[in-house]
Amino acid sequence: MPIQLIGFLGGYTHEVSITLEELGLPYDFSETTFKVLGTPEFLASNHPFARVPVLIDDGFKVYETEAITRYLVKKYQGKKNSTVLIPTDEKKAALVDQFISVGNSYYIPILFKLVDEELVVELKGLTKNPEIIKGAIGEIDNTLTVYEKLLEGKEYLAGEFSLADILHVPFTQLAIMCGHDFWNDPKRPNVARWWKNISERPCCKKIGAEIGIPKV
Amino acid sequence: MPIQLIGFLGGYTHEVSITLEELGLPYDFSETTFKVLGTPEFLASNHPFARVPVLIDDGFKVYETEAITRYLVKKYQGKKNSTVLIPTDEKKAALVDQFISVGNSYYIPILFKLVDEELVVELKGLTKNPEIIKGAIGEIDNTLTVYEKLLEGKEYLAGEFSLADILHVPFTQLAIMCGHDFWNDPKRPNVARWWKNISERPCCKKIGAEIGIPKV
Repeated sequence: MPIQLIGFLGGYTHEVSITLEELGLPYDFSETTFKVLGTPEFLASNHPFARVPVLIDDGFKVYETEAITRYLVKKYQGKKNSTVLIPTDEKKAALVDQFISVGNSYYIPILFKLVDEELVVELKGLTKNPEIIKGAIGEIDNTLTVYEKLLEGKEYLAGEFSLADILHVPFTQLAIMCGHDFWNDPKRPNVARWWKNISERPCCKKIGAEIGIPKV
Repeated sequence: MPIQLIGFLGGYTHEVSITLEELGLPYDFSETTFKVLGTPEFLASNHPFARVPVLIDDGFKVYETEAITRYLVKKYQGKKNSTVLIPTDEKKAALVDQFISVGNSYYIPILFKLVDEELVVELKGLTKNPEIIKGAIGEIDNTLTVYEKLLEGKEYLAGEFSLADILHVPFTQLAIMCGHDFWNDPKRPNVARWWKNISERPCCKKIGAEIGIPKV
């Protein structure tokens, strides 16, 4: 039975989808809804904090995006193709881990705030708050100013393409879909080059074309 | 030259200290201050987002707690003692990674909010907000209710002691130091057993005794 992925058509679930695609792994995707996440069945059998994605591989179930992607890399990297998402060298791996943590700490939470306000708040019957959007835009600008320095002379965050780049893709794609294109700005040529490198990868294009609004 | 660790006497830095101690590694610790974090020198040479901890190992520098601890495990696990913080088995490692992500997503941010309000806000010349403390306490209660289920029949989060347990220690120690002892509550016997198991480990006791308030 192929790997099963439960989630939404975007965001954290897409970090896993891109990882699966980059590693050349076939998988079945099941879309779920916000309503299902809160049911006793989902909490008991899939994710105790009512989140997605969840992955099932030959009966083994694991939740939380970073745990899933690390599991896939450990088990399958090098099996179907030569793509390396976490290098075996300790120092190279440490730089990938460093930029995974940078992304999870200073990039994703701000983009999440922006995208949640732009796309999800109204689905839940609430009203968009322009102040939240404005605040998030200011924070993204600050973060990307730091990224511009981090990306000086580099094609990808850790030098070579890695899991650290993948984790930035889904929320960047969602922000761009909402009309906020900070990734094609001549004042930040390093960020623009980096985003072009990633977004032109066939796996990122493929998953980007599958984006859908989460279902309530 | 021994490993060098730059940081504060508590919080994220202590995740690294406990990891170093558990792996049996000698290290030199340099305490820094909030003021230093924001200097151009620190931003350029240590952490571009003005954070601690930072680790230097034989000239190799890495920042962000999770990247540092994973690097130490990859390079040194099994070298000085038999303590295993991330197992080599893919499925066992996936469970450790899962609970690392659970801790980083649903536990640490809430305790950080509580401890920051209790200890750090006044250092920065602001006034404590009792509403933030009250809100954080409610959230901690919800999270620990889920942990009580996750820890059913287990001594540690992933079964055996691991890096996932270590990451919970420093902010729990700080919360207890502030007088919030939710970890010794008869209504949550599994959480109480888990915390007793961790907090009685010699390395956790040793680092817990070194807690200090961050310096402005």
